[in-house]
Amino acid sequence: MLLSQLELPSCQNGACVEVKDVLNRVGDKWSLYVVVNLYGEEVRFNELKRRIEGISQRMLTLTLRGLERDGLVKRTVFPTNPPSVSYALTELGQTLLEPVLALVKWAGIHRAGVEQARNRFDARVEPEVTRK
Amino acid sequence: MLLSQLELPSCQNGACVEVKDVLNRVGDKWSLYVVVNLYGEEVRFNELKRRIEGISQRMLTLTLRGLERDGLVKRTVFPTNPPSVSYALTELGQTLLEPVLALVKWAGIHRAGVEQARNRFDARVEPEVTRK
Repeated sequence: MLLSQLELPSCQNGACVEVKDVLNRVGDKWSLYVVVNLYGEEVRFNELKRRIEGISQRMLTLTLRGLERDGLVKRTVFPTNPPSVSYALTELGQTLLEPVLALVKWAGIHRAGVEQARNRFDARVEPEVTRK
Repeated sequence: MLLSQLELPSCQNGACVEVKDVLNRVGDKWSLYVVVNLYGEEVRFNELKRRIEGISQRMLTLTLRGLERDGLVKRTVFPTNPPSVSYALTELGQTLLEPVLALVKWAGIHRAGVEQARNRFDARVEPEVTRK
């Protein structure tokens, strides 16, 4: 089925560019991790960095800035010394939780199935030729 | 909320590595596009490439190979001359449709809200300094 055939309010007449544009944000693992980690609480930058294993300071900064620009995350600076910065989901960001958590739940439920499929795939002798 | 605090079957005792590993696949826009475009039908490589605007031949090949390895997509080679290759969702892949379509639907519904947020963000004078 073409993306344009899905019954999406903004996806009529084959013009799905805007939807794809939004999907570029939510179809990004770091954005997913940030959204999940802001579930129900306000979290400081350094705490987020600690929680999201493998993310660099730069990638976390870029991801948060992208999410803030999209209106999904709000940033608060506290006038402490040094200033501390924390992040929380906006109302719009909270609406994203449901589909994102559904995806996380899928990953949890089907982890073993995916693992088995990978083992089967890797056990097959795959010729090292360019495939399409 | 920590990812490990979500009630996920494989995410107890703080060990979420496998779930994150699966999320790396589904939290990838190209994988999302491929899954959506295989909704309810078998599609040839060249047709997929035509439908997914902006994807390179190499990226589509890599994405399909990753999805096949994860057991989400099955690949069929037809002995035509030249051989043609088509792709379809497996049963496991079909279970992924629901959360992925929920995400696509979210993107469709909230496109305008995201667009407004971006315009507001871009209108603010943001000093070009490193933030965190």
